[in-house]
This record gives sequence, C-alpha cells and structure tokens, in this order.
Amino acid sequence: MDWASRVDRAFPQPLRVILRGVGQVFFCCNALTGLIFLIALFIGGVAAGAAATVGVLTSTVTAHLLAFSKKDIDAGLYGFNGTLVGPCLFLFLEHSPQLWLYVILASILSSVVLAALMRILRPYQVPASTSPFVLTSWMFLVAVYGFESFTRSPVLPAAGIPVAVPGAGGLAVENWPVALFKGVGEVMFADSVTVGILFLAGIAIVSLRGALMAVGGAFVGIVFPTLLNANLNAIEMGLYAFNPVLTMMAIGWVFLKPSGKSAALAVLAGLMTVVCQAGLASFLTPIGLPTLTFPFVLVMWMFLFAAGMSRHWADPDAEGG
Amino acid sequence: MDWASRVDRAFPQPLRVILRGVGQVFFCCNALTGLIFLIALFIGGVAAGAAATVGVLTSTVTAHLLAFSKKDIDAGLYGFNGTLVGPCLFLFLEHSPQLWLYVILASILSSVVLAALMRILRPYQVPASTSPFVLTSWMFLVAVYGFESFTRSPVLPAAGIPVAVPGAGGLAVENWPVALFKGVGEVMFADSVTVGILFLAGIAIVSLRGALMAVGGAFVGIVFPTLLNANLNAIEMGLYAFNPVLTMMAIGWVFLKPSGKSAALAVLAGLMTVVCQAGLASFLTPIGLPTLTFPFVLVMWMFLFAAGMSRHWADPDAEGG
Amino acid sequence: MDWASRVDRAFPQPLRVILRGVGQVFFCCNALTGLIFLIALFIGGVAAGAAATVGVLTSTVTAHLLAFSKKDIDAGLYGFNGTLVGPCLFLFLEHSPQLWLYVILASILSSVVLAALMRILRPYQVPASTSPFVLTSWMFLVAVYGFESFTRSPVLPAAGIPVAVPGAGGLAVENWPVALFKGVGEVMFADSVTVGILFLAGIAIVSLRGALMAVGGAFVGIVFPTLLNANLNAIEMGLYAFNPVLTMMAIGWVFLKPSGKSAALAVLAGLMTVVCQAGLASFLTPIGLPTLTFPFVLVMWMFLFAAGMSRHWADPDAEGG
Repeated sequence: MDWASRVDRAFPQPLRVILRGVGQVFFCCNALTGLIFLIALFIGGVAAGAAATVGVLTSTVTAHLLAFSKKDIDAGLYGFNGTLVGPCLFLFLEHSPQLWLYVILASILSSVVLAALMRILRPYQVPASTSPFVLTSWMFLVAVYGFESFTRSPVLPAAGIPVAVPGAGGLAVENWPVALFKGVGEVMFADSVTVGILFLAGIAIVSLRGALMAVGGAFVGIVFPTLLNANLNAIEMGLYAFNPVLTMMAIGWVFLKPSGKSAALAVLAGLMTVVCQAGLASFLTPIGLPTLTFPFVLVMWMFLFAAGMSRHWADPDAEGG
Repeated sequence: MDWASRVDRAFPQPLRVILRGVGQVFFCCNALTGLIFLIALFIGGVAAGAAATVGVLTSTVTAHLLAFSKKDIDAGLYGFNGTLVGPCLFLFLEHSPQLWLYVILASILSSVVLAALMRILRPYQVPASTSPFVLTSWMFLVAVYGFESFTRSPVLPAAGIPVAVPGAGGLAVENWPVALFKGVGEVMFADSVTVGILFLAGIAIVSLRGALMAVGGAFVGIVFPTLLNANLNAIEMGLYAFNPVLTMMAIGWVFLKPSGKSAALAVLAGLMTVVCQAGLASFLTPIGLPTLTFPFVLVMWMFLFAAGMSRHWADPDAEGG
Repeated sequence: MDWASRVDRAFPQPLRVILRGVGQVFFCCNALTGLIFLIALFIGGVAAGAAATVGVLTSTVTAHLLAFSKKDIDAGLYGFNGTLVGPCLFLFLEHSPQLWLYVILASILSSVVLAALMRILRPYQVPASTSPFVLTSWMFLVAVYGFESFTRSPVLPAAGIPVAVPGAGGLAVENWPVALFKGVGEVMFADSVTVGILFLAGIAIVSLRGALMAVGGAFVGIVFPTLLNANLNAIEMGLYAFNPVLTMMAIGWVFLKPSGKSAALAVLAGLMTVVCQAGLASFLTPIGLPTLTFPFVLVMWMFLFAAGMSRHWADPDAEGG
C-alpha cells in the first residue's frame, strides 16, 4: 500500500536494507514490515530474535563484501536467508557460545549459495527463494554429528528408519484458528498465535492479496492433511501449514500475474505442498533432519518452471535460454 | 511403419491423443500401439488398466487446462507419465476408494513436473522422459508414511539399512525367454509374459528397430546381472531388464540418429543401467522406495548429454546454450 | 614454471596425454607432474598404482573412441576421473580378478558423465572437476550390495543410522605435519607422508601458488576440525584435509584470477568444506558410502557460481546464459 511504501523509504539507508531483509522472508520488500516481523520474533523468544538479527546482518554484510548486485542487496534479497538461518540453528541445536560462530558461518554461506543459485536460475527467471537457507541449514545441522562442540536439541526429529505416523482423528473446527495463526508463525519457527497474527499484519500492510494467500495456504495446510488423516499434533502446531502459506503467496501473489487463474493454481500448488511435506519428511528421516521450507521451494519451482510453458502465464516461445 | 501411421490418423482426435499418450510409454506416437498397450494392461489386471486410463486422462486434461503446448499434447507427451503413475500407485499401495483421488492428484502433478523439466532441459534438447512419473510417484509413495488414509502394500521394498543381497547362482538358459518378456512387461508393472509379448508387438508395428532394441535391452538385463551374480528371483521377474529395455530403445532408436555406432552405444548404456539399477535400489533402501524407471532416466540423460559433446552425434560447437 | 612446461612438451604424444591426465587430479596439465604422481601412487601401493593406470588409460581411450573434444583430451581432462576411480574401487572393495572389469566399466562411465556435466555446466563456465569420479564411484560402490561377485571392504564406512562421533580432544601441534602431508596424499587415497610430499613436489614444479594453496587447505583441514572438536583419528589421517586442499587450490589458484581477495575467498571456502565434509558424511551414513571429494566439488561449485555474480571476479552483466 502506498503509505507503507512511504514509511519504508523514510527509514535511514542501512537500517532499511536490513529490515527489508527480514521482510523478504514473506516476500515483502518493506522495512516497516521487517520491523514488525523482527518485533514479533523477539516476542516469540529473545534468542530467536537475536539470532535472526545476527543472521540478517551477517548475510547482508557478506553480500556487500563479496560485491554482489547492489540492487539486490538494497531490496533485502541477501537478508532473508540469514534471517531464517539464525533462529533455525538456535531452535534445533543446544545453545552455547560457539553456536553464535556457527550462525555467522552459516549466514555467510547462505549468501554465497544464494548468489550461486540466482546465477543458475537466471536464464529461467525463477527465484532461489529460501532454498539457500534450507540447503545451508541442513548441511550445518547434519554436520553436528561430527563435531562434539555442538549438540542436537530434542526438537530435531530423531534419525531412524521411517515408519507410519499415527493419524489419530481429525482436528475439531474450533481449533482451526489456533492452527492457522501458528501455521503462519512457524515460517520463522514460532509456535505462537501472537507471532502469526503480527506476521499477517506485516504482510497485510504491503498487500491484502498477499495476506489473503497466506491465510488460504494455512487453511489448505489444515484441511487437506486432516482429510488425509495426518498426525493431529503436527496439524495443530501448524507444521503442515507453513509451507503451503509460502507456496500460495508465491504462486498466487508474487511471481505470477495476479488473476483468478493464478489463485486457482496457487490452491493446487498448496495441496501438492502438503503431500510434499509428508514425503520429504520421510525422505529425511534416516538422517534426522526437518523439512524446513523445502516442500514450498520444490513445489514453487515446479509450478513456476511449468508456468513458463503455459499460454496463461507466459509466451512460451519467447524465451531463448 | 506406414500402415500403422494411417491407422493412427484414422482414430478420432481426442481418443487418438489419449491412446498416443499410452503409446509414448515406449516412445511410440501411435494410437494403435497405445490401444494394444492398454488392452495388454487390462489383461495384466483390471485395476492396473483402469488406473492407467484414469492417469492418462487426468494428465492430458491437466496439460490442456494449463494451456501447455498443443503440439506436445497432441503427440501424447502429456499422457505417458500419467499412464505410469496410475498402475504404480495401485501396485504399491493398498486399494481403497481414496486411492483414486491420490492417482488423480499425482497425475496432475506429473504434467506440471513434465512441463517444468521440459523447460529446464530445452536448451540442451534432452527429453524429460519418464522422470516426472518417477519423481511424482516417489513423493506420493513416501508421503504415505504420514497419511493414515493410505497403506503401503507388501510389494514395496521394506525400509531398512541396505545389506548384501544373496546371488544364488545363475539363471538357466531355458528360463531366459520368460525373463525376457516379463522384463518388457515390467516397464508397466506387469509380471506377465503375455503382456510383454503384446508390448513388443505394439512397438514392432511402429518400428522393428525399436522392438529389436527392446529385446536387446531385456537380453542385457538378463545376461549382465547373471554374470555379476545378482539376485536370481529379481532377474527371473525381469526386474533387472525393464530399465535397460528403455535405455536401449532411447539411445539406439529414438534420440540419436540410428547407426551401428548408436547401437553399440546403446549396449554400453544398457550395461551401465544394470549397475545403476542395483546402485539406486541400495540408495533408496533406507526409505523403502523402488527404483521405478529412474536408472533408465539417469543413464539416458548422461549418455544423451554426452552425445552432444561428440563429433559422432552432434556438432559440439553449434550449441549456444 | 617454464622448464616444467618444456619437459612436459618433450614427452611423446600419447604418453604425455595419459600423464597429464594423472596430473590433472591436482589441476596440473603437466606430464612430469603426472609422472611424479604416478610414481608416488605406486610407492603408496602397487594395486593402487596399477588401478590408477588402468583407470586413466580406459577413461582417456573412451573419450577418444566417443569422439569428444580433442583439445580437452589432449589437456588430460578425460584422464583424472579415471585415475581416481581405479584406486577408489581397489581401496573400498575386496580385491578379485573381476574387480578389474568393474574398474574398466566405471572408468568408461566417468568419461561419459564428464562429457555430460561439461555440457550442462558450459553456459556457466564452471568446471565439472572430480564430480564424475564421485558420482560414478558412489554408484558402483553402492551397487555392490546387489552383486554377489563383489564384496565391500572393511574400509568402507558401515551403513547405519548416524550417531554423534566422539571428538576425543585436540591434535597436538607436533602431529600436525604428519596430518598435513597425509591430507594431501588422501586426495588419491594414500595414507602416507611420503606420497603427500611427492604430490606437493609435483604441484610445486607447476606453480608455487598452487602448492601453497594445497598446504593452506591441509592446514585449514587440521585446525578448523580441531576447533570444532571433530574425531581425532580422522583429523590425524588427513580425512578432514584432502577436500579443503582441493577447494583452496581451485578457488585460490586455478579458476579465479589470483589475488589477495581470491586467497581470502579460498580460506573461507576451505572452512565451509570442513563443515560440508562432516555434513555429507552423515548424509551418506544410512547407505554406507564415503564422501570422496564431493565436499570439495559442492563448495567449489557454490563459490565459483557465486563469483560470477561478483564485481570482484566477473562482469556479472556480461553473461547471456
């Protein structure tokens, strides 16, 4: 919205870049949105907020030192992966002083991986999105088996051979709102209704369509796994919802021209993300890693690449590369 | 062959597209071939035939609704992945009414993934082939651990840590014909000599060279694993043969200009497919997934990409991208 | 150095190509260096030396028969993956006559995979490096579960669910030189100080900067895992060092213009390689495979792709593809 853009431009330059980096977690190039997100993160937990701050600072400074595109840095694109790396490592590993070093190293790497993936994907005009965060965090989390200086926290899924997860009945409709807001909050690892509401508010000041898609994604991530009889506890915590939230925002708002067709495609992509969530979780079970936002990344990639072949969203013959 | 093309063109338009989709499982853009394949599938099992029909219909209609290339749809290219998804899910999961929904969703996704991979591979002029079927089916099969509404069938390999498989002596020569025809049938999950013979007949009416390559691939998939002392039961069922069947057809007939050199390369690719079959099976053991046709896809990709660097099959300097 | 180039050109043509293939393991297009490496390999073990010889011959002849680029063959680029495949299979599988067949097949495949990856990576001007060796060797090693004709040697990591590895204190400084030279030797699977010294000598006659980067990488591969409290035995054997050795040579000497900035980037890449080493080892634990040089390949790819986006190392807007 117009006033939100004006507030964004009123922030002093370095602060604006950093806060935009936080805002970009939900595709919002807006410092005010980023500020709301950061406050919400600190409300969710001081360690998570501090780790996100260290992460966004490190990854943005890295991009500056490595002389990556000024325009991309200025838009906060080199910030959101670092923003996610920080709280991720602080959630899934035991806290210790050396964990800060680990967060800094991983945030540096996330900017290198982002630049690499941007270059690979550039001919196709498809975004890297949060894939650098996921790939970097997986590597740093699974490396911990080899380093006695770090310890896996019990929040990490135990490594083992996958077995059928008990479904245990559906989710009562009166519990849907809690699951819905938590689903939005879990994008940044916050198991909190308040945080989810603040995230939605931050999105809404940039775009109502964006906020609507986020709510729609959370809704898909509650109803569809309930129909498939997935684990009740996971649905209640919003763990099936945070990936469809991002998928529906990406497909239905950010990367395709907004239309009824795009909204329908976004719902379809949201459904596929739920299947992908369960599938990827099983894939990762033998090494004890969480899916993070990779179900969203995979499904978004498939749908955006495919949209480039469709007369609805592209001139499929126009592209050389 | 000429008369087969005339028969193909005699089918009414929508039916022709659907049947070509079935025919494309073995690279045959011919409705008569597709009809023979479909009849064979129903002979192999009514559920498999019905699931293939639902799959090919769904994936083709999806491509139409998403406005992908009319030329590709008309050639049946958006049909064969759906054709495979259907019987695959019906073989490896317990039958239930909601399984039909699962088949429809997976068939939809297979068309999206095909469009995405076509776009990624277009600069290299390398086909996606059955990779959308494999990637989609793996995701839907492994997701079942998380959804109580579906149950893994005992046909799926048990998840576990890989151990050495007993070899148990070679295959007697008099059992080769059975293994050979079953090997062709297993491309569409049919453990049946009759189905294999019908598949070969369907290929032969389009191209004798194609049928010859299929037989050659099945032969490689019996002799080479026997030499390497692989599991007798798997060889007898044609489980080492169906991937080399496809590899040799792709390299020796469809995608490289037919010649003695291409035939020799096809045999080499067939041998590598056998090693890849055993290797990929072990890779997938911890999560309990079958290789499906991915050994074929991987080896075909490597050999076709490489052929683009060879003075025998390409002008390696001609390509920009 | 100039005299080394003159010696290189004095070798008769076919021998020069083969020896350059061996030299390219450490990025050295020089037959004398290759000769020193080969002598070192035979000192390390006759089987390893013979397997490397068979590997380099097979992969180079394959490239010639498949009519790949004469310039690339002449530079030894189709030799180094075969050079590595041979000793790798002889280290990790029990010796037997049929193992020679396996080495020949894998070396053939390594040349096909190299051509394929060169074609995929060409638009980005990023090298395939040792990735064909790794991918081929992984496939052939893990396939052995299915073939009774081959047996896994106890040197291979046991397959299982990953668990935390005991760190057991740091490495005493007086043991660093041994670990350092072994780290260089382990690039070609040699657990030997002599071999490591000979490798360094072979590199030094081509480039002192190259040798310096190799020593720097080994140093990073000792100090950083010691700080992170990694397994003492692995550090002592140089198993954390051989990947950073290659990474630092690639980033700090071969593929980016040599400068202070490139040296700094090389150290950063070396640190990331150590984390990637531990992470990839855990990833591969469920199927019982070693990382080989894939940590180097992954990190090098990320840093080289990213360097193409940086004003320090590239004109990021110049590239079409």
